[in-house]
Amino acid sequence: MKLTIERTLLLKALGHVQSVVERRNTIPILSNVLAEAKDGQLGLTATDMDLAVVEKVAADITAPGAATVPAHTLYDIVRKLPEGAQVQIELAADGQQVTVKAGRSRFALATLPKEDFPAIHAGDLPHKFPLSAADLKGLIDRTKFAISTEETRYYLNGIYMHAYAAGKQTSLRAVATDGHRLARVEMPLPEGAEGIPGVIVPRKMVNEVRKLIEDFDGAIDVSLSDSRIRFAFADIVLTSKLIDGSFPDYQRVIPTANDKILEVDRKEFRDAVDRVSTISSEKSRAVKLSLKPGILTLSATSAENGSASEELEVKYDGQAMEIGFNSKYLLDVADEIEGDGLELKLADSVAPTLLRDMADAQALYVLMPMRV
Amino acid sequence: MKLTIERTLLLKALGHVQSVVERRNTIPILSNVLAEAKDGQLGLTATDMDLAVVEKVAADITAPGAATVPAHTLYDIVRKLPEGAQVQIELAADGQQVTVKAGRSRFALATLPKEDFPAIHAGDLPHKFPLSAADLKGLIDRTKFAISTEETRYYLNGIYMHAYAAGKQTSLRAVATDGHRLARVEMPLPEGAEGIPGVIVPRKMVNEVRKLIEDFDGAIDVSLSDSRIRFAFADIVLTSKLIDGSFPDYQRVIPTANDKILEVDRKEFRDAVDRVSTISSEKSRAVKLSLKPGILTLSATSAENGSASEELEVKYDGQAMEIGFNSKYLLDVADEIEGDGLELKLADSVAPTLLRDMADAQALYVLMPMRV
Repeated sequence: MKLTIERTLLLKALGHVQSVVERRNTIPILSNVLAEAKDGQLGLTATDMDLAVVEKVAADITAPGAATVPAHTLYDIVRKLPEGAQVQIELAADGQQVTVKAGRSRFALATLPKEDFPAIHAGDLPHKFPLSAADLKGLIDRTKFAISTEETRYYLNGIYMHAYAAGKQTSLRAVATDGHRLARVEMPLPEGAEGIPGVIVPRKMVNEVRKLIEDFDGAIDVSLSDSRIRFAFADIVLTSKLIDGSFPDYQRVIPTANDKILEVDRKEFRDAVDRVSTISSEKSRAVKLSLKPGILTLSATSAENGSASEELEVKYDGQAMEIGFNSKYLLDVADEIEGDGLELKLADSVAPTLLRDMADAQALYVLMPMRV
Repeated sequence: MKLTIERTLLLKALGHVQSVVERRNTIPILSNVLAEAKDGQLGLTATDMDLAVVEKVAADITAPGAATVPAHTLYDIVRKLPEGAQVQIELAADGQQVTVKAGRSRFALATLPKEDFPAIHAGDLPHKFPLSAADLKGLIDRTKFAISTEETRYYLNGIYMHAYAAGKQTSLRAVATDGHRLARVEMPLPEGAEGIPGVIVPRKMVNEVRKLIEDFDGAIDVSLSDSRIRFAFADIVLTSKLIDGSFPDYQRVIPTANDKILEVDRKEFRDAVDRVSTISSEKSRAVKLSLKPGILTLSATSAENGSASEELEVKYDGQAMEIGFNSKYLLDVADEIEGDGLELKLADSVAPTLLRDMADAQALYVLMPMRV
């Protein structure tokens, strides 16, 4: 293998793929990136055995071939090379080392046999549909924060994606919950996604794809089976195992009969919750919402810190009531909402509460109250 | 105590003083800031018993008095208040709580008796001299990185400041060392600093004063005894205990007979060291400098990573030689130097090496070599 590539192109692609490589690996080859040179392209592959990323980038190939090299080390070297450098990468004749040269810099990196690099067998991915980057960002951004981090509830450690039919309306839904809160977003079902299985996309895949599409605004090809999902776009292919478990019947958690409607200005509400929660104990982070017609009073007390309260003028004409929430959960929802108005639908002080962006019919959030 | 103060003014002063307050305190009152209202000013004091900071800020005082409140909590509250808010601070009649009000927000904070707040007795500070902020920044920035972090060598955990006389020339010197490297900066002795004792200013004081003078460019009043130092400027007074120990006789470490002169371009050298050290083992961080007339070759090898080398064209006409250094130490010096040229004066591969900014006669650095 021998090739020359412009430093900026190589840096960008390596930056993408090295992010999948864990810092500590018990299996040495998982610290490496597989470089494959052929047909005017350099292919870079990294994997942690669950998630694999492949990116192709144009290169001047002198001798086709493949080799593996430590991903983070190669990335650091390329990052430190001067802008505009031409980088020459070559597998030594004895197959023991890969040399990287640029200007008067010369590196010899240990290599591991390319045959030992785990092949990524996605198997057959029978379902295929397109999704715009904007839609995928929307599905992820409005649900990701609710993904559980409790490892024992592994089936909640991702976003549940599935097709949903209500009468003649079919939609693609993304749902995440940690048992204390739930986020559900839906959009019209893309053509080709009819009959997809419900799948749980693991958090790492969610984070990686979200990072990679940050500056991308075209269409993404999604393919999946009941054990794998793949996102392909630009010159990147991300493939991940799905979480093997069943997502709980989330529909049962979403209240339908909450009849007390509270409308608040999103920013005013967010800032007031943030201020009042300064006093909440670090453990509970609780804030109390006290409602009476036209007025919402937010308050918090803690033995260590003292007390705080703030009044907001709001739209509310229901009965007086009090309800407590984890302030962080309120802030997460308020921060994700883009419209000016936030609607809360309440039943009583112990029942799940429904939250909605008044300017966005696609998303819906449920918060469990806490005793205050 | 009752007063009203503009939020921006309060935030700035609190931001300064709360930085001294440790996150965890076994003595509860050290978590508090002492607020003293009198004569149209609010005085804020924070201390960790070694270091104390006092800042005064204009306020509208309705009733003079004093109270202590949790520093980080008050800072967080004020930070979260809307811009332009007028903040009212009042000690409740029963002396048990301090209320903070702004707009429709209201906070009641636990207070501790102001009598329990540690008084800062600096004692007599017989030596006084002025130092421009630029000069103090220069003394700190060019030495701070060499301060030792080894707690057992407590007498190296600060910057040694003293007056130095060579013939008729007197200078103020700042020196720091961790036993592997040394930084020494000197400037003309300010008037009034004749006869000051040699003092070791602890790292926390160095860091705090450096932060506080970042945007300040006037003169700083320095006062000191053999156990305390004080920096006063704008409306801020910082007082710190000095490290009670003797700084080693650093002059003995500075080589005077090194006769091999190497001149490098600072940026070229810095970047090449950075690149080559990517390969160094994380533990040693060693890079080797191989010298022959006109050419410097930097290299590194490690069992895990492989090897790296880079050639630089340099000014050198001495004998061929090799010497190893911790790459981080080379980078620290190269990053601190502002001129284009860096001069290294070498003796042999085991002797201390002298480094200088070719555009700055005030600063001098010594590095111990390492075996490579």
